[in-house]
Amino acid sequence: MHEQFNFAIEVLGTIAFSMSGSFAAMQKRLDPFGVLIIAFVTSVGGGTVRDLLLDIPVFWMHDLLMCALIIITSVISMVFKSLEKNFKVTLFIFDSFGLGLFTIIGIQKGLNVGIHPLICIGLGTITGCFGGIIRDILLNRIPLIFRKEIYATACIVGGAAFLLMTKYTPLSYTFIQIFTILLIVAIRTFAVKYHWQMPKFYGYDQTSEM
Amino acid sequence: MHEQFNFAIEVLGTIAFSMSGSFAAMQKRLDPFGVLIIAFVTSVGGGTVRDLLLDIPVFWMHDLLMCALIIITSVISMVFKSLEKNFKVTLFIFDSFGLGLFTIIGIQKGLNVGIHPLICIGLGTITGCFGGIIRDILLNRIPLIFRKEIYATACIVGGAAFLLMTKYTPLSYTFIQIFTILLIVAIRTFAVKYHWQMPKFYGYDQTSEM
Amino acid sequence: MHEQFNFAIEVLGTIAFSMSGSFAAMQKRLDPFGVLIIAFVTSVGGGTVRDLLLDIPVFWMHDLLMCALIIITSVISMVFKSLEKNFKVTLFIFDSFGLGLFTIIGIQKGLNVGIHPLICIGLGTITGCFGGIIRDILLNRIPLIFRKEIYATACIVGGAAFLLMTKYTPLSYTFIQIFTILLIVAIRTFAVKYHWQMPKFYGYDQTSEM
Repeated sequence: MHEQFNFAIEVLGTIAFSMSGSFAAMQKRLDPFGVLIIAFVTSVGGGTVRDLLLDIPVFWMHDLLMCALIIITSVISMVFKSLEKNFKVTLFIFDSFGLGLFTIIGIQKGLNVGIHPLICIGLGTITGCFGGIIRDILLNRIPLIFRKEIYATACIVGGAAFLLMTKYTPLSYTFIQIFTILLIVAIRTFAVKYHWQMPKFYGYDQTSEM
Repeated sequence: MHEQFNFAIEVLGTIAFSMSGSFAAMQKRLDPFGVLIIAFVTSVGGGTVRDLLLDIPVFWMHDLLMCALIIITSVISMVFKSLEKNFKVTLFIFDSFGLGLFTIIGIQKGLNVGIHPLICIGLGTITGCFGGIIRDILLNRIPLIFRKEIYATACIVGGAAFLLMTKYTPLSYTFIQIFTILLIVAIRTFAVKYHWQMPKFYGYDQTSEM
Repeated sequence: MHEQFNFAIEVLGTIAFSMSGSFAAMQKRLDPFGVLIIAFVTSVGGGTVRDLLLDIPVFWMHDLLMCALIIITSVISMVFKSLEKNFKVTLFIFDSFGLGLFTIIGIQKGLNVGIHPLICIGLGTITGCFGGIIRDILLNRIPLIFRKEIYATACIVGGAAFLLMTKYTPLSYTFIQIFTILLIVAIRTFAVKYHWQMPKFYGYDQTSEM
């Protein structure tokens, strides 16, 4: 049941990431293949960077099912453009659960090959966030997560909680995992609901450039 | 003879990619070393991403000849800027043949390490297209192939034809390869000649952003 | 003593790169986690690309100290924003020494795995320059080193001098290394002091696009 739970979340998260990429690409008026590539990169980008850094096989190279899921989701997004408006909240929830799970997968893969836990938090954040960063680079805008949302912050807080609990509590792995995902979902939900934002460096002297 | 044919096309394709990078960089008024780096990245970018994804040695790390060819081509492009106008059609043809061959090389390298054929079409497309994508990212514009040309489409159609023919026909490898390259060249040529374009997502509501 | 000298320069160079990333990110008004990510990428980006190309372990994956140094430097930069103005010259010197050392490290790592010396100059340049390039891509501007500074040029000239001296002179490795670093520092210093610039391709016909 634990495996099936993870698989279900991974599918939902991948669908959400693929849709977020597709809609962002359509807003920039790309052609269908451009939309498809952006959807793909948004979905697999974070995990790909992680696997390259760890020098382990890139996960989607042997996962035809995941590739098909991304492509089908992207095509559906192009056909039913109204999905974005009507299912905005649903997509946000999928995206947050996906972010939570992807963060944990990233940490776990790092721990498996003997990386220090603190660096693993970075790997978890990369897994969760870099797909969106590459999407925004390809669409020629400053990555959204640097400006607008409590996104990386949720990964880092969730990842730290995950590591502390696995190390210092006797709780079961399944419980810790579910708790971490819910924590990340909660942080993101409250952040959006109450317009939490990290402070920015307004009023900075823009004339000096190194 | 077959080997020599491939080598000749690889040289012509590399020259075309290096020139396309050089001219794009000069249009953005980069300095000569900037032009050189863009030319290099345009030429080797796609194959580099492919080799990293497959975890095989990056092809140009041990290919001094190819590196020299890219640099010399880029220097010639800087000295004879008029080349771009006077040899536009020639360069387009080189570029298309190169695209065809690079797509096949990408697919073949994927098949060699046991990747599923459908994912190999993606690898072929990456090999052909990602050099230009990285070039455009470095030059701070939305990648051209997402907006303007039947480029990725030609790779995907050609790659699918290549795989179907190798699997379901008794034709020789050399014949299939030449046919695929000519098919990709033909798609691109007709697309440019008759202004084929993929439809784009005009009129999309730009106010909503996920 | 030689080891300690290298370690000291690596620390100073990393501090300078982390600060340059932090200040550039603050100028673009990113939030603190955005600043942190940019600082990190600026510091480790060049070495990461080099290690991926060489297929050797990514250097910071097992270097908690370096990771901590980057994060602490970035936090200090955020708290004491005035550092940028008051220590501009100091930071420039750190940055130049770091550039010199990182170039040599890149070349050395390439030679160690049997890459041809000429390609190793490219690896040295990548190690020194790609952190700044990725920083500028993430901040959505054309990389600074393509437009403004004698930066890649210093790497290439320094790298060539390093290789020629190790091959054709009986000088000690330590001497050659120090000489190369000072050469790169000197080129950059004179370039900035006397406003050296590579010529650019002004007046280029901007209407034609391939």
